[in-house]
Amino acid sequence: MRIARFIAGNQQQPRYAFVQQDKNDGKDYLIALDGYPLSGAQVKPTGERFAVDSDGVRLLAPIIPSKVFGLAKNYEAHAKFMAGDIWKTVAPPDEMMIFSKPSTAVVGPDDPIVYPSWSHELNYEPEVAVVMGKVTRDVSPEDAMKHVLGFTCVNDVTARDAQRNDPMWTRAKGFDSACPLGPWIQTELDYAHADISFSLNGEPVKDAAGNTENLIHSIPDQIAFISTFSTLLPGDVIMTGTPYATGALHPGDETVVTVAGIGSLRNIVVAR
Amino acid sequence: MRIARFIAGNQQQPRYAFVQQDKNDGKDYLIALDGYPLSGAQVKPTGERFAVDSDGVRLLAPIIPSKVFGLAKNYEAHAKFMAGDIWKTVAPPDEMMIFSKPSTAVVGPDDPIVYPSWSHELNYEPEVAVVMGKVTRDVSPEDAMKHVLGFTCVNDVTARDAQRNDPMWTRAKGFDSACPLGPWIQTELDYAHADISFSLNGEPVKDAAGNTENLIHSIPDQIAFISTFSTLLPGDVIMTGTPYATGALHPGDETVVTVAGIGSLRNIVVAR
Repeated sequence: MRIARFIAGNQQQPRYAFVQQDKNDGKDYLIALDGYPLSGAQVKPTGERFAVDSDGVRLLAPIIPSKVFGLAKNYEAHAKFMAGDIWKTVAPPDEMMIFSKPSTAVVGPDDPIVYPSWSHELNYEPEVAVVMGKVTRDVSPEDAMKHVLGFTCVNDVTARDAQRNDPMWTRAKGFDSACPLGPWIQTELDYAHADISFSLNGEPVKDAAGNTENLIHSIPDQIAFISTFSTLLPGDVIMTGTPYATGALHPGDETVVTVAGIGSLRNIVVAR
Repeated sequence: MRIARFIAGNQQQPRYAFVQQDKNDGKDYLIALDGYPLSGAQVKPTGERFAVDSDGVRLLAPIIPSKVFGLAKNYEAHAKFMAGDIWKTVAPPDEMMIFSKPSTAVVGPDDPIVYPSWSHELNYEPEVAVVMGKVTRDVSPEDAMKHVLGFTCVNDVTARDAQRNDPMWTRAKGFDSACPLGPWIQTELDYAHADISFSLNGEPVKDAAGNTENLIHSIPDQIAFISTFSTLLPGDVIMTGTPYATGALHPGDETVVTVAGIGSLRNIVVAR
């Protein structure tokens, strides 16, 4: 099941929808709902149906999380790529390295990534994002996935130059628009074998791609570790790590993060 | 003006109040309000009045922020105290070092600080906290204070051992209950000359005390810097730095952070 958040027509109130592919034309349609499908309450279709690509339909970030956690150095290929720059060594740390982004960093599909005035080295980082479904504290890796609502795509946008001077990465990864999320929440995903790819201005960037089977710390282990110190709330997001190389963004660039089985998240970089 | 959030009697819905000192008995009273005084809407007293120290009255964290930012190494005395441990040098960094705590770390007056199972070195850090009153982005230091609602006390509780292994401090400073806030928001404070003190189990800890006149980065400069990268929302909190020494907490300890002109924030450390 795919869950989207959207605005259509003159109605400025964000609404939720299931996303269904039409068997006849092969296109994705939003099946508008009369409530919030993440609350556990029963929701019903309103009878309205909008083609995702139709005029006047705008997808929003599928969730506004209370907090976003991220895993640093969680693929060996990425650790090697970064060694000598952000990382002194390739070896992963003894414990997971967790950073965070505030809710004000979140933007949705097609929203601008605003290039900060204080950075000259903005980078993309395509990743799989986990969206929590339940209040989660001290969960075991074995039970962790029962607390997950689904998965979406994230671009863990990073001001690499600021990151070198900012030990906590708060500014480098937490600035407004540094967390594009979308296009929707996919509740069914083979999360242990998910292909991640990235394209820049329509060109696939081969060395930014990867697969979650190469994660150093698995998704259940990530959830379990984070839940030893912080209560995860429904809608909270975990960015599971970028698989390999990252690279520069410039104003005007079009970024597309694709996770096979979820979909594609497109954004445009704009100057301030 | 002092603004508190509280629960009284059987009513479990948090409410807001102005705090007023009675001229006859000298005690603080909650003047219950019919709405939310932080929204800019007109609020009126309901006619109910409760002594702050009366049975059945419980103060809550005066605000649940969308995010909490903190300043690291923002007093020279603290930088010297920490040099050789968390800091390699006493010299302050070129730019402000900002960390963050999620909303799930916030607790209120008299709430327990829960000692994490994974730490053996929990420390107190008494500080002045700024509470934002307006949506704030790219504000100048000159205009910054117009965006502030008021000030409260904060204990920037830190798992010092985890902090040594956690470059982003996400776990060390962001765990559940690591951000006691209160007892209320004071809208009038001479914030550039505010005395901070701390007591542990009823004994003043002299070398934990200080005054905001010794801040390396002033409060207006902190707000201006943070607003260059992140939109501050009404209710968001900035922890302005701990003035000097910090020290160990143990289960059973009573902590009291006092800022002259605001009041005192008391908490108890409990084992998990």
